[in-house]
Amino acid sequence: MEQHGGFSGVIAPVLTPFGEDGNPDAGRLVDHAHWLMEEGCTGLAPFGTTSEANSLGLDERMELLEELVDDGIEAEKLMPGTGTCSLADTIMLTRHAMDLGCGGVLMLPPFYYKGPSEEGLFRFFAEAIEGVGDDKLKVYLYHIPPVAQVGFPLPLIGRLIKAFPDTVVGLKDSSGDWGNTEAILEAFPNFEVFPGSEVFLLDGLRKGGAGCISATCNVSASAIRKVYDNWKGAEADKLQAGITALRKAIQAYPMIPALKAIIAHYRGDAGWAKVRAPFTELPAAEAEKAIRTLADAHGFRLDFDKAA
Amino acid sequence: MEQHGGFSGVIAPVLTPFGEDGNPDAGRLVDHAHWLMEEGCTGLAPFGTTSEANSLGLDERMELLEELVDDGIEAEKLMPGTGTCSLADTIMLTRHAMDLGCGGVLMLPPFYYKGPSEEGLFRFFAEAIEGVGDDKLKVYLYHIPPVAQVGFPLPLIGRLIKAFPDTVVGLKDSSGDWGNTEAILEAFPNFEVFPGSEVFLLDGLRKGGAGCISATCNVSASAIRKVYDNWKGAEADKLQAGITALRKAIQAYPMIPALKAIIAHYRGDAGWAKVRAPFTELPAAEAEKAIRTLADAHGFRLDFDKAA
Repeated sequence: MEQHGGFSGVIAPVLTPFGEDGNPDAGRLVDHAHWLMEEGCTGLAPFGTTSEANSLGLDERMELLEELVDDGIEAEKLMPGTGTCSLADTIMLTRHAMDLGCGGVLMLPPFYYKGPSEEGLFRFFAEAIEGVGDDKLKVYLYHIPPVAQVGFPLPLIGRLIKAFPDTVVGLKDSSGDWGNTEAILEAFPNFEVFPGSEVFLLDGLRKGGAGCISATCNVSASAIRKVYDNWKGAEADKLQAGITALRKAIQAYPMIPALKAIIAHYRGDAGWAKVRAPFTELPAAEAEKAIRTLADAHGFRLDFDKAA
Repeated sequence: MEQHGGFSGVIAPVLTPFGEDGNPDAGRLVDHAHWLMEEGCTGLAPFGTTSEANSLGLDERMELLEELVDDGIEAEKLMPGTGTCSLADTIMLTRHAMDLGCGGVLMLPPFYYKGPSEEGLFRFFAEAIEGVGDDKLKVYLYHIPPVAQVGFPLPLIGRLIKAFPDTVVGLKDSSGDWGNTEAILEAFPNFEVFPGSEVFLLDGLRKGGAGCISATCNVSASAIRKVYDNWKGAEADKLQAGITALRKAIQAYPMIPALKAIIAHYRGDAGWAKVRAPFTELPAAEAEKAIRTLADAHGFRLDFDKAA
């Protein structure tokens, strides 16, 4: 498995905290990013779906990325989301990430117009890559049809790899469909494929996958990392069963509000629970139930003291 | 029918032309906008779906709007699209439109996250309106579920009107579902409702509708205007049948590439046909077929000489 994009392992699509005024809270974000790396993340993918990235303004996204780098998160370990509906804005965000030295970018397809042709999507990425015009650019395609509706069919992935072999180096597959992940892994052996859920981490690694980029890495990176580190060991299936069960328990709740409520609880920082519209916070009773269920059934808790 | 938003009649969601370099072409845009007003449009809604607005960068949108106003398009007749997935960018685009004196704005709901709650969507619009903080702001809700997926159910419309009676003044209904348009017209009598297709123009006017905002106004505004001006006359149904038949003939083709190909043909300006990815241009044979069919079956042609 030759890997040429530089990312592997356990990557968290970092949650974006907000302040009382509704603006993104860079201080809380940076603290969370450092904690995630200490918990065992091998990289961070800020400004993904879990980050409420599409609810942020372009300026907000760029300022927060600068804060992360300025505060000592290694830029090479950052794979920020930079794909938007617009070619111009996608190029702008990607250039900005490259100027900061980010190791790669995660690109959504343009998702407003539904049912675009393969040729239209190919042109979008070709023009974006040529528009950025940087040989060091590493693009990870972000396949998340349940949300974006527009996705990456295999022939499109193949065309992009063929046209830009040193740039289009991987994909996050948030289809939730293992059959699709498996088909991509089989079709493109040197491609860095990250399932969008740790449920498929072990299956993915056994087929040549690169790791996972998963929302729940925001609260369970250390357990997920254990599977990644021990995937060839005797305990692998047992460890995988544990993170699968925890993931399924968490995703019984609205994912983003639930993750924020969990962090708010264990940090003792109620403000962490704030989300931006169109999301709404998890009602207090729901949040308490989630936290209690996870603790009782899965022994789940978060320890922020060691990071303080 | 008390109208308090100031828009009525035939409004074109203005196509956005591009230059050879792929950048928006302000010169072609301004010429087209003036021609549309001469053809009988009562207002213009640049940066809608037909305008490929979501394929434009935020800066590109703002610069083009400034060009329209600077070149003499009356700002009060402009209802630019300013709704994005992001609260911050929606506020920025809307403030910019208000600063230029635009008569209103057309707001998409945040369309990335699917299945948002009514409360979440209400908060988005409430925070956007409060964030703009301008008593003169007139918001037209942009309901286009076939593309945005996220739409405006009746209870949400009712809540927004109640909370912001002087600001949330109308809606463009591009559902393509006359039953939905009719239900909105019946539920909210003082609301300015524009069907998103001239197919429903006469039915809408007879129920208290305000006019239409339709992609095909880019090429058939004068015929649509005739229906609007004569809707109480004896010829109304016959005139309506003519614009309905033309619309149906045009929408047999991919709408945006077809409209651009038609204009390119009659202007004798091949560059007008250019679209931005993820769209692709209509193949030449398809374009010729469309133009010939429209001319033969509907006597359709465009006259740009009178505007020169």
